[in-house]
Amino acid sequence: MEEITLVPSNSLITDTPEEGRQLAVKMARLIIKMTQPDAAERDKLRNVYASDAMMLIAVGQTVATEFATVAAANNYWQKS
Amino acid sequence: MEEITLVPSNSLITDTPEEGRQLAVKMARLIIKMTQPDAAERDKLRNVYASDAMMLIAVGQTVATEFATVAAANNYWQKS
Amino acid sequence: MEEITLVPSNSLITDTPEEGRQLAVKMARLIIKMTQPDAAERDKLRNVYASDAMMLIAVGQTVATEFATVAAANNYWQKS
Amino acid sequence: MEEITLVPSNSLITDTPEEGRQLAVKMARLIIKMTQPDAAERDKLRNVYASDAMMLIAVGQTVATEFATVAAANNYWQKS
Amino acid sequence: MEEITLVPSNSLITDTPEEGRQLAVKMARLIIKMTQPDAAERDKLRNVYASDAMMLIAVGQTVATEFATVAAANNYWQKS
Amino acid sequence: MEEITLVPSNSLITDTPEEGRQLAVKMARLIIKMTQPDAAERDKLRNVYASDAMMLIAVGQTVATEFATVAAANNYWQKS
Repeated sequence: MEEITLVPSNSLITDTPEEGRQLAVKMARLIIKMTQPDAAERDKLRNVYASDAMMLIAVGQTVATEFATVAAANNYWQKS
Repeated sequence: MEEITLVPSNSLITDTPEEGRQLAVKMARLIIKMTQPDAAERDKLRNVYASDAMMLIAVGQTVATEFATVAAANNYWQKS
Repeated sequence: MEEITLVPSNSLITDTPEEGRQLAVKMARLIIKMTQPDAAERDKLRNVYASDAMMLIAVGQTVATEFATVAAANNYWQKS
Repeated sequence: MEEITLVPSNSLITDTPEEGRQLAVKMARLIIKMTQPDAAERDKLRNVYASDAMMLIAVGQTVATEFATVAAANNYWQKS
Repeated sequence: MEEITLVPSNSLITDTPEEGRQLAVKMARLIIKMTQPDAAERDKLRNVYASDAMMLIAVGQTVATEFATVAAANNYWQKS
Repeated sequence: MEEITLVPSNSLITDTPEEGRQLAVKMARLIIKMTQPDAAERDKLRNVYASDAMMLIAVGQTVATEFATVAAANNYWQKS
């Protein structure tokens, strides 16, 4: 069940902030996928949180936390 | 659905703390937009969290986390 | 609606930790103001969270996160 | 209402980790005091969260966040 | 009850980001195991949070926080 | 009531990551002990959160935050 990849390309390094943000989103989703491996169940739950104000905010909090790590790994793309 | 831009101008660098704060707010909103792409649904949910004390606090928590990253990226605007 | 100032004095630098803490509080409140621009509505919600134990704790969490950024920006006021 | 002191001694520097932890607790409490200035109301709410498992955990989360800042300010008391 | 190992291999260093992510997940789970040592009870609770949208998001938040530490410990795998 | 020790050994430095993790757990528990000094009440609440999926996740979040500080204090045990 845990044999899914958790870090795409096995790297935190991206070319741009935009790609870093996409990586943060993907990493957050892969934890959900690992915890709930049933795709149909995930789709159902996705509809739940996409329509709930508090859950949308909480999704944002998780992505923000993942992105902090990705951004630090890329030295904030300052000297790339 | 995910083809929206997640990092405006594809950069974390801003001229001032004020602009950095605005970027943090935009980045937080763009995650909500990506997760709930229906504009009418987002408007409805926005009314929900704007009128709920706990959700307003949670919005503040998410922006604070995004801003921590933006501020670090700009070396806290100390030597700009 | 978003034309309010989000970072007073457009700076994270303060003379003292006490002023830095006050800035953290103000920044947290300005996000709430931006999200809920109606002053009467904010007053009502303020009464809600000032009388709810969990919300008071959550306010503290948000201020703590903002303060972490302000304190780092000021190098923790160690050599000012 | 906000004329209370938010950072005791106006400093994040302490002699020991134990004193730093006490400072983190005090700073968290002072935000609650600022948000709810009525002492009788605070006592009532304190009884609420001291008897609620989720709120106790949330208190711990807030103190942990404050302590992270205090500990960084003191360079983790490594070379004091 | 607390004699379980909390940090596998007693090290935060891993060869790759993928292994670091797996370590973050394991460390998060071991805290749950320590807090609820009954395996049957944990299985029951696991089913609860795997089917609850808000809890799935919260699991992601916890893993993100653990991963921030593991990633920093490995200098973000930049020069490995 | 607050005369309990909040940081065992008055130090964040440990020999190993495992001991650092145990310190993070203890520090989190001592905040709960300070906030709810009645041992019988704490035992009752402990049973509550050990049997509640969301609370278990929240315990993990708090420990993760404490551990981030302990790990940084020990330079992630890289050169000990």
